[in-house]
Amino acid sequence: MKILVINGPNLDLLGRREPELYGTTTLTQLEEDLEKYSREKLADVSLVFGRSNREGEIIDLLNSGHGKYDGLVINPAGLSYNSYALRDSVLAFPHPKVVVHITNVFAREPYRRNDLIAEVADGFICGLGTQGYRLAIDAIVALLKAGRKGA
Amino acid sequence: MKILVINGPNLDLLGRREPELYGTTTLTQLEEDLEKYSREKLADVSLVFGRSNREGEIIDLLNSGHGKYDGLVINPAGLSYNSYALRDSVLAFPHPKVVVHITNVFAREPYRRNDLIAEVADGFICGLGTQGYRLAIDAIVALLKAGRKGA
Amino acid sequence: MKILVINGPNLDLLGRREPELYGTTTLTQLEEDLEKYSREKLADVSLVFGRSNREGEIIDLLNSGHGKYDGLVINPAGLSYNSYALRDSVLAFPHPKVVVHITNVFAREPYRRNDLIAEVADGFICGLGTQGYRLAIDAIVALLKAGRKGA
Amino acid sequence: MKILVINGPNLDLLGRREPELYGTTTLTQLEEDLEKYSREKLADVSLVFGRSNREGEIIDLLNSGHGKYDGLVINPAGLSYNSYALRDSVLAFPHPKVVVHITNVFAREPYRRNDLIAEVADGFICGLGTQGYRLAIDAIVALLKAGRKGA
Amino acid sequence: MKILVINGPNLDLLGRREPELYGTTTLTQLEEDLEKYSREKLADVSLVFGRSNREGEIIDLLNSGHGKYDGLVINPAGLSYNSYALRDSVLAFPHPKVVVHITNVFAREPYRRNDLIAEVADGFICGLGTQGYRLAIDAIVALLKAGRKGA
Amino acid sequence: MKILVINGPNLDLLGRREPELYGTTTLTQLEEDLEKYSREKLADVSLVFGRSNREGEIIDLLNSGHGKYDGLVINPAGLSYNSYALRDSVLAFPHPKVVVHITNVFAREPYRRNDLIAEVADGFICGLGTQGYRLAIDAIVALLKAGRKGA
Amino acid sequence: MKILVINGPNLDLLGRREPELYGTTTLTQLEEDLEKYSREKLADVSLVFGRSNREGEIIDLLNSGHGKYDGLVINPAGLSYNSYALRDSVLAFPHPKVVVHITNVFAREPYRRNDLIAEVADGFICGLGTQGYRLAIDAIVALLKAGRKGA
Amino acid sequence: MKILVINGPNLDLLGRREPELYGTTTLTQLEEDLEKYSREKLADVSLVFGRSNREGEIIDLLNSGHGKYDGLVINPAGLSYNSYALRDSVLAFPHPKVVVHITNVFAREPYRRNDLIAEVADGFICGLGTQGYRLAIDAIVALLKAGRKGA
Amino acid sequence: MKILVINGPNLDLLGRREPELYGTTTLTQLEEDLEKYSREKLADVSLVFGRSNREGEIIDLLNSGHGKYDGLVINPAGLSYNSYALRDSVLAFPHPKVVVHITNVFAREPYRRNDLIAEVADGFICGLGTQGYRLAIDAIVALLKAGRKGA
Amino acid sequence: MKILVINGPNLDLLGRREPELYGTTTLTQLEEDLEKYSREKLADVSLVFGRSNREGEIIDLLNSGHGKYDGLVINPAGLSYNSYALRDSVLAFPHPKVVVHITNVFAREPYRRNDLIAEVADGFICGLGTQGYRLAIDAIVALLKAGRKGA
Amino acid sequence: MKILVINGPNLDLLGRREPELYGTTTLTQLEEDLEKYSREKLADVSLVFGRSNREGEIIDLLNSGHGKYDGLVINPAGLSYNSYALRDSVLAFPHPKVVVHITNVFAREPYRRNDLIAEVADGFICGLGTQGYRLAIDAIVALLKAGRKGA
Amino acid sequence: MKILVINGPNLDLLGRREPELYGTTTLTQLEEDLEKYSREKLADVSLVFGRSNREGEIIDLLNSGHGKYDGLVINPAGLSYNSYALRDSVLAFPHPKVVVHITNVFAREPYRRNDLIAEVADGFICGLGTQGYRLAIDAIVALLKAGRKGA
Repeated sequence: MKILVINGPNLDLLGRREPELYGTTTLTQLEEDLEKYSREKLADVSLVFGRSNREGEIIDLLNSGHGKYDGLVINPAGLSYNSYALRDSVLAFPHPKVVVHITNVFAREPYRRNDLIAEVADGFICGLGTQGYRLAIDAIVALLKAGRKGA
Repeated sequence: MKILVINGPNLDLLGRREPELYGTTTLTQLEEDLEKYSREKLADVSLVFGRSNREGEIIDLLNSGHGKYDGLVINPAGLSYNSYALRDSVLAFPHPKVVVHITNVFAREPYRRNDLIAEVADGFICGLGTQGYRLAIDAIVALLKAGRKGA
Repeated sequence: MKILVINGPNLDLLGRREPELYGTTTLTQLEEDLEKYSREKLADVSLVFGRSNREGEIIDLLNSGHGKYDGLVINPAGLSYNSYALRDSVLAFPHPKVVVHITNVFAREPYRRNDLIAEVADGFICGLGTQGYRLAIDAIVALLKAGRKGA
Repeated sequence: MKILVINGPNLDLLGRREPELYGTTTLTQLEEDLEKYSREKLADVSLVFGRSNREGEIIDLLNSGHGKYDGLVINPAGLSYNSYALRDSVLAFPHPKVVVHITNVFAREPYRRNDLIAEVADGFICGLGTQGYRLAIDAIVALLKAGRKGA
Repeated sequence: MKILVINGPNLDLLGRREPELYGTTTLTQLEEDLEKYSREKLADVSLVFGRSNREGEIIDLLNSGHGKYDGLVINPAGLSYNSYALRDSVLAFPHPKVVVHITNVFAREPYRRNDLIAEVADGFICGLGTQGYRLAIDAIVALLKAGRKGA
Repeated sequence: MKILVINGPNLDLLGRREPELYGTTTLTQLEEDLEKYSREKLADVSLVFGRSNREGEIIDLLNSGHGKYDGLVINPAGLSYNSYALRDSVLAFPHPKVVVHITNVFAREPYRRNDLIAEVADGFICGLGTQGYRLAIDAIVALLKAGRKGA
Repeated sequence: MKILVINGPNLDLLGRREPELYGTTTLTQLEEDLEKYSREKLADVSLVFGRSNREGEIIDLLNSGHGKYDGLVINPAGLSYNSYALRDSVLAFPHPKVVVHITNVFAREPYRRNDLIAEVADGFICGLGTQGYRLAIDAIVALLKAGRKGA
Repeated sequence: MKILVINGPNLDLLGRREPELYGTTTLTQLEEDLEKYSREKLADVSLVFGRSNREGEIIDLLNSGHGKYDGLVINPAGLSYNSYALRDSVLAFPHPKVVVHITNVFAREPYRRNDLIAEVADGFICGLGTQGYRLAIDAIVALLKAGRKGA
Repeated sequence: MKILVINGPNLDLLGRREPELYGTTTLTQLEEDLEKYSREKLADVSLVFGRSNREGEIIDLLNSGHGKYDGLVINPAGLSYNSYALRDSVLAFPHPKVVVHITNVFAREPYRRNDLIAEVADGFICGLGTQGYRLAIDAIVALLKAGRKGA
Repeated sequence: MKILVINGPNLDLLGRREPELYGTTTLTQLEEDLEKYSREKLADVSLVFGRSNREGEIIDLLNSGHGKYDGLVINPAGLSYNSYALRDSVLAFPHPKVVVHITNVFAREPYRRNDLIAEVADGFICGLGTQGYRLAIDAIVALLKAGRKGA
Repeated sequence: MKILVINGPNLDLLGRREPELYGTTTLTQLEEDLEKYSREKLADVSLVFGRSNREGEIIDLLNSGHGKYDGLVINPAGLSYNSYALRDSVLAFPHPKVVVHITNVFAREPYRRNDLIAEVADGFICGLGTQGYRLAIDAIVALLKAGRKGA
Repeated sequence: MKILVINGPNLDLLGRREPELYGTTTLTQLEEDLEKYSREKLADVSLVFGRSNREGEIIDLLNSGHGKYDGLVINPAGLSYNSYALRDSVLAFPHPKVVVHITNVFAREPYRRNDLIAEVADGFICGLGTQGYRLAIDAIVALLKAGRKGA
């Protein structure tokens, strides 16, 4: 199983930006930690990472990945609330997909409830810090084992 | 570690009600599965289950459980969208707490985004079927290991 | 045919509360009148009455009545406008169901148009006083004769 | 007793338009059925039918019918949601009046809750198919026996 | 192929009313131009024109035209924004149908985006002046050639 | 000077409908009174009356009256709040025009502030009973003397 | 009869401010014109003028004028839309009262429909320029002759 | 005089929950304090206390208390904002009634302004801590002395 | 202790304006009654009264009273709903402050729930007639004894 | 004449994504078909195609194309609903421009009515499948022949 | 050049009220600083200061200042959000005008975006503390040099 | 001091696009003018310019500029109203930042009040043409001299 893990705009600042909200783990540390976790705990799972501040780059990555990956973990960050283009692209992605947000979006500004990407995903996890990525990978694996296609 | 797992109104119908949405696992099977999972995979974790169709009963259970449990997994079902009283009670509960919904609330009626309980929880998981409960228990364990108190 | 007739919160005050709106018939008189009507006019129909001020009690009654009753007449009173839990329970009830309100809800406060229970019922009758219950029973009988299952 | 039964715009298509919603009974069959029902079951009740796709024609019919009829059963169809002129006319009609809709308006588009005609009627029945007309006639008879004037 | 071309309220004033918005072509000129266009350019296409300031007349025309015409081009003008009765009638029309507006409705008052008729049509063309009617006829022909039924 | 005075739907009931709101003067009496007033007090002014329950008839009357009349006094009644077609027609009428309502619309239901016809008229008078028509005629005369064209 | 004529904030600029909207007549000219009109045309009517840019001054004038004047013509200008205090004061004024606006408020910004003062007046006139004041005085006279008290 | 003092959901946590908002007095201390206050300061006043986390229990208490008590002091807590059933019950209670909230609801979340219970009470006191209960009892006594019935 | 008691616009009409709502006590009587009450019942409390129909005068009174008074009882009347300037001034007043309304604002027009002054006060009392002022003074005294500063 | 034809985000998936909505024609086939159509049917018209998933690339293309192209056909896809930057760019483009959507946007999610690009275009065509592009090119040609500049 | 600098309600408290928001500079210090700045840095510029808690006084100052001053710097404070009267007055002021707010209004309560005065000003500066006044004076000077009249 | 000056989408068209709104200065001229101004008037200030039509490019520029620049002047143009990603990036930028718009956004479309970037900036200047950039640079310099960090 090959799972694509995408981080959207400004997550290059992870660990430095508002650490009281997002924690002190950097993106590199997070990716290494997930790599290690899937290598040690999950046989047959390999991860591919993508990150960009540009909506179009993420869409290109997704649109060209049909059949190349078996699942998607995505933190769309600020694009969650305004990108109809990314929504269309995730909707078209034909494999299980789970949205992750590091903070609890229900306890923050109201616009965060208008998550366009969550509307077309299979699952949604938030508020559990960077551990949310691990849970999302576990969920993708379980969905694939149950034979589910993407929503 | 002792984790309280609460299911709200109508989850007594789980497995029979709208199985295309909620699946065919019954509540009894779900609770047995979680019991088995925590016994086998998670040393030192025991689960206590509660279920009720009555808001007041759930509040009594929570208000009398301060210090008796170490964490809370709750699926408030229909109470999520109108119970300010349950919201107050969960807010007062001084341990890590994670809300679970079986279906993806973002892909359903708009009122489901007004989740009053999610506003005062630590984390939120939805759309991943009954597997969401397992992930929630994993999350509580991780939060407790990291020394976190409830939101 | 066995039809469950449920009256929700504050209908214990029927006949005493705002009689210019709700009339002077008490709940006991109403139930006796319906009993007599179904005994005399409707062969093969028996009625079972339920009344409670508590949402959870009504849900218990409904959830345990699948297959035990053939139809439901319900006046959810104040619960009509805020109980997502009762809505879920009525939705799950697998038999014909008709909502009754004694007064014309369209001629009163705007919130009465947000009738959550009416959304998941087969039929809806309002504004015709306690006679509305008789019409609802007639309707259930006709729906059953036509072989309809609940909405 | 003489009761006016009015059907509004597009009910000339009844039985052909969206039969999964409105059934297969045509308007002619419905009117014959009601005629037969009132002749056989209700002594002293005669029915007069009106149907038009034009708001003004219906208003003329109502405004010229004060004292000529004893009650009104009306399915205003699409006019229910935008005709302030029909609303004024029904309000002025000085006899009992009941609105009927064939489908359950609460389970359809939100605009159907803004029923301007229902606001000024005595009673409202929906979701019970063409049987709703029978129930409405029964209700008018009962209101007249109880000495009620129109709302 | 026989296509019905309907113009709604106030289009009798075309060419005289607000010419800076609607142009100087009169309705008669428009109809002659379309006649000529279909005769010369489109073999096998004949047009039937209807125009009325009255909602009920247009509905009568449509409801009696099932099977008589093969397609519909309609400019509902002011009825677009409030006629639920016309919406029902167009929805019931079982052939391809295209809505035309002479001006660009997106660049005018906000209420013009609530086009009830457009919701139940196959296609929608606006902002291209009276040329829009020609394009609509071309579109109907293409839809019929592709074997499409009405939306 | 020739002034067209139009009364819309249900004003045929004037004097009988809700007299505590609309007074006891009938439409015939009102028209005679205005006739007498203009004959005695206003040299060179003649009145033409129109009344209909049908939107299309009123539009026909207006659209065919360009240049035939010098001004318009109109009480659109229930059409004021939903007729975009009448709004278009009044907008196109190229002479001074004043809207009259018998009651004070600001002291009644909120929808009465959405007066579509008032938006395109020159003047608006309400709350002054049937005297409002006299004032409107005076206003039209003054606007004409000042050389004003319609709004 | 003694009628109080009040002009609110910024009407000291009348004739100079936005003359394309408000005309070129100054406040002094308007008051002289009204004086002359009532002296010549209306026996037994005398006018008293008040004008202020200060809400409190206008309220003082009204509250101390109970019984001193027989009627009120008021153009509250910008205070119409936010002064609950002036609304209370006009409501308490126990004589006929008519609100005048020089321009057609329905053809301008939406907030002008929220006229707090109009809600508690007897009548309302707008869009007829400074002639509106004359009509308002005529209306007050007619209301007084009919024995009406203030709304 | 016998006054019923009811505390709603989660007030069993008083003194422990968010003490910076609600203070450190427990419910038992509050009830003892009120008891003492009424015994010492108010001759002829006795208090009866009720508390429940369950809407239905509070309604039962109120509906069975007509004529048994002379007044009501109620802190409905979270039920204030969603319980139409409790609203109906308080409305039906035929004695003076005062709503108390410990904190200033105007300085908190917007939903707290939609206090359904306050709408049907005589008086409302908030923001004054537990002293608010004393003031409410004083108010009930004064209302009773003035011969007032419930709103 | 020196408490400032301010009454806003139109309260000079107290006892005369809408007595069925506001009672028959005049402002002078109210102030004398409060004077007497504080002299007889509350040692060490003296009252200073202010009243104005002008927003600016009340602000001047408050802004110049920091440290001169120990508390504030204010009935802002109509200014409650639109005066951001008074809100700023009350917010800046550094002593305990309680808002009083004579009638139950929750049972009246919706705009009364947008009480800008209540948002920045310590406490709020309404619906208890002129007795509300006494309770407010009691509350200020209690707040001062407890050492509280203004909100 | 040289016409620029732009397709926005995710149209690279055309023919594969939701074919029941968008059809089975791929983007390459569509472009070839349009090329052939304009070569064979439209003398003097050449087409230039652009496609990108990136808002900035499309803006660059447009801003550098002033005077280089004579008209624009654009399907902005998901950017239609949120790109104020693209809206500004299309607005600045000084040639005729027509927006095309393949599906009927009025029959889908409400956000599709907020088409920012349509607001600044000359014409708008939707619901007619890929044939809409042909009609748009015809429309551009007609606009150019009529000497029109861009909106 | 003579520039009028006006400060509205509660700015007499500047330096004392919420210093963490508004800073510790008092109004007197601010005015002296601006005086000094314009004397030293800006040849030919003299400043006139006005401050009042009363809307009417500010309007008097503006309405009588046409031609007397060459520009206006105004901080309307709380009047920005509700004074239609001040808006009318500023609109009528025929010279360049710039609105200043000390704090960043976009980062505070939503009502601050409804700045009625900003709508009719030339420029707007906020969030830069008392330095904003200096920048506003610079801007006025530049606008005058460029020959601009007021907006 | 090194200040980054960023211009967003479509500002490459400055001087050519809608010159009656944006003036005739081109972007190149503006940048040269600012360069000259800072070189001549502001010792120790150097400017770095950035411009792009692509959101992602601007974010990359900002995220990589922490510590490299001392302040930010940004005109986000169309991105101001929809880019949550740019908002996050500006929020994370740890130096003083001022938003500039060339036109007065309060006098244009309502969506311009929803300026997401202004919410997280220190200051905001609009309506003063290209001079606004100079004022913004002055403001940054003053903020830096006062030792302020970014908001």
